[in-house]
Amino acid sequence: MTAPLSEFELIARLAARLKPPGVPGAVGIGDDCAALPDGGGFLLLTCDAAVEGRHFTPGRTSHAAIGWRIATANVSDIVACGGRPTAALVSLGVPPGLPPETLDALYDGLARAAGHYGFDVLGGNVSGSGQLWVDLFMLGRAGRFISRAGAQPGDLLAVSGPLGDSAAGLALLLQGKAPPTPPPHADALMERHLRPLARLDLVEPLAQAATAAIDISDGLASELHHLAARSGVRLDVEAERIPRSPELIACAAAMGWDPLRMALGSGEEYALLFTVPRGGGLSAFGGLGTRIIGEVRAGAGVYLDGEPLAPAGWDHLRPPT
Amino acid sequence: MTAPLSEFELIARLAARLKPPGVPGAVGIGDDCAALPDGGGFLLLTCDAAVEGRHFTPGRTSHAAIGWRIATANVSDIVACGGRPTAALVSLGVPPGLPPETLDALYDGLARAAGHYGFDVLGGNVSGSGQLWVDLFMLGRAGRFISRAGAQPGDLLAVSGPLGDSAAGLALLLQGKAPPTPPPHADALMERHLRPLARLDLVEPLAQAATAAIDISDGLASELHHLAARSGVRLDVEAERIPRSPELIACAAAMGWDPLRMALGSGEEYALLFTVPRGGGLSAFGGLGTRIIGEVRAGAGVYLDGEPLAPAGWDHLRPPT
Repeated sequence: MTAPLSEFELIARLAARLKPPGVPGAVGIGDDCAALPDGGGFLLLTCDAAVEGRHFTPGRTSHAAIGWRIATANVSDIVACGGRPTAALVSLGVPPGLPPETLDALYDGLARAAGHYGFDVLGGNVSGSGQLWVDLFMLGRAGRFISRAGAQPGDLLAVSGPLGDSAAGLALLLQGKAPPTPPPHADALMERHLRPLARLDLVEPLAQAATAAIDISDGLASELHHLAARSGVRLDVEAERIPRSPELIACAAAMGWDPLRMALGSGEEYALLFTVPRGGGLSAFGGLGTRIIGEVRAGAGVYLDGEPLAPAGWDHLRPPT
Repeated sequence: MTAPLSEFELIARLAARLKPPGVPGAVGIGDDCAALPDGGGFLLLTCDAAVEGRHFTPGRTSHAAIGWRIATANVSDIVACGGRPTAALVSLGVPPGLPPETLDALYDGLARAAGHYGFDVLGGNVSGSGQLWVDLFMLGRAGRFISRAGAQPGDLLAVSGPLGDSAAGLALLLQGKAPPTPPPHADALMERHLRPLARLDLVEPLAQAATAAIDISDGLASELHHLAARSGVRLDVEAERIPRSPELIACAAAMGWDPLRMALGSGEEYALLFTVPRGGGLSAFGGLGTRIIGEVRAGAGVYLDGEPLAPAGWDHLRPPT
């Protein structure tokens, strides 16, 4: 009997059983998307699933929000690789007796996301299942493929905007019954958890300037470690430069929460972490709300104000909390 | 309270909530694959899932066989549209405490299929789940897209080879304990259920000659109805022309089974049903074991020896048997 593997140990173990891609220039496991060279650019491929009892609890999250969020998760993976989404297939696991209105709502959320982000839902599959799950496969197109592996010592480290709102919104949702006096901005923070937005507005500047990028789906701390390991660099972050929204700061103060902890651990926010060359690299991002949070150095590991930072992200195989 | 929807009623209901594809020439819901025009040909997209307790029972089917079969199911969809598979993503639902060796075996089956059929497994996703499921998303490439909708009155109706072996193999597997004297060819028939082969050898002749094609994944009777409805034609089948293997005939005789019923209802066999123009259309298929089973007429519906034939296929939302 061995100890259970983490998500990332399992992925590494399974990846080792597969042959490397036979197509020259193809990108396999290790980035936010896989990619195939196509007509001078890249065809991007990604997938992400939402499972009842793991990623959502019926009654707490509307099914329209589930449809929107699973689309947003996939779009964010495509944006992180420098592309725009083009098409999706949706695969459903449907438990016996599920009211069809539930799936109507899920599809309405998905259809709204398709309209917003500009992709077509071209088809999919329906299977019987013990619990509801939705698995979305998405294709995208990029001129240049932005990998997690391209960060260079000397680059600046940046994020796409304020972090932690989603974690605060989730914590408020998980409290269930509203407190007699809800904390400030509770509704706005819960809405940011339920209706996150993938940053399609960053595609062009990322394609123009980023040396590496990664979608913050499992929390900033966790993604910093992925980026450092894949690029073979050390990342130094200054805590006070990590952007936090005024709404998060006010709510956290009222609730006695630590906004920095929330910003470091907030997943499902679909913000991006990326690196740009020092000197002019950030000029492409003017007015888009991106913030420098630190720098890339030669070495290994992740440091917050000079101290080693633990990864502490969301593990998809950990029991739900 | 309404009656539960069938798989096909549900798909039609959900499809109605989506916009038609915005890309000119794209193919959406209704064929074995979706498709996007790409470089003078088509990029094909399909997905198919295997769910524990629905499509397989642990202990009865090896996990290597599950990996092989889910790949074969997807490849067969791509062949039915006239293409070859190029790349796949694999999405896993992993229950707590699943021994990693189980997934090793599943990936070994998948890797063998990737080598055999010539596609790359480029990545995927891992989610926690209450039960094991594997959802495979596959891309392929076709010069010409073969739809279910192209059958013309006057065309001949054909299948790719003997039908019913898989149903017989499954029936033998479901009996559990081997009878004291196993029926003839029991092992060969069970093997055909567990290790079906997608007909990659038919891609070129289909691309050259087929007017319509469909993968027989849910049973011949069911697929005849899909083809007739989508093409807007009547299909007339002669029972004695439906090919059955000598192994099936001998085993069915010993077990008291009706081989015709098995041939009409056998799913997961990954045989193909297709139509070709009369006069020369079949010459491309010489030596590949295909058989004419009837003809396409003006009208609607499916007739077996002149009598209306009920669809009676596998419904993915029906309770498992």
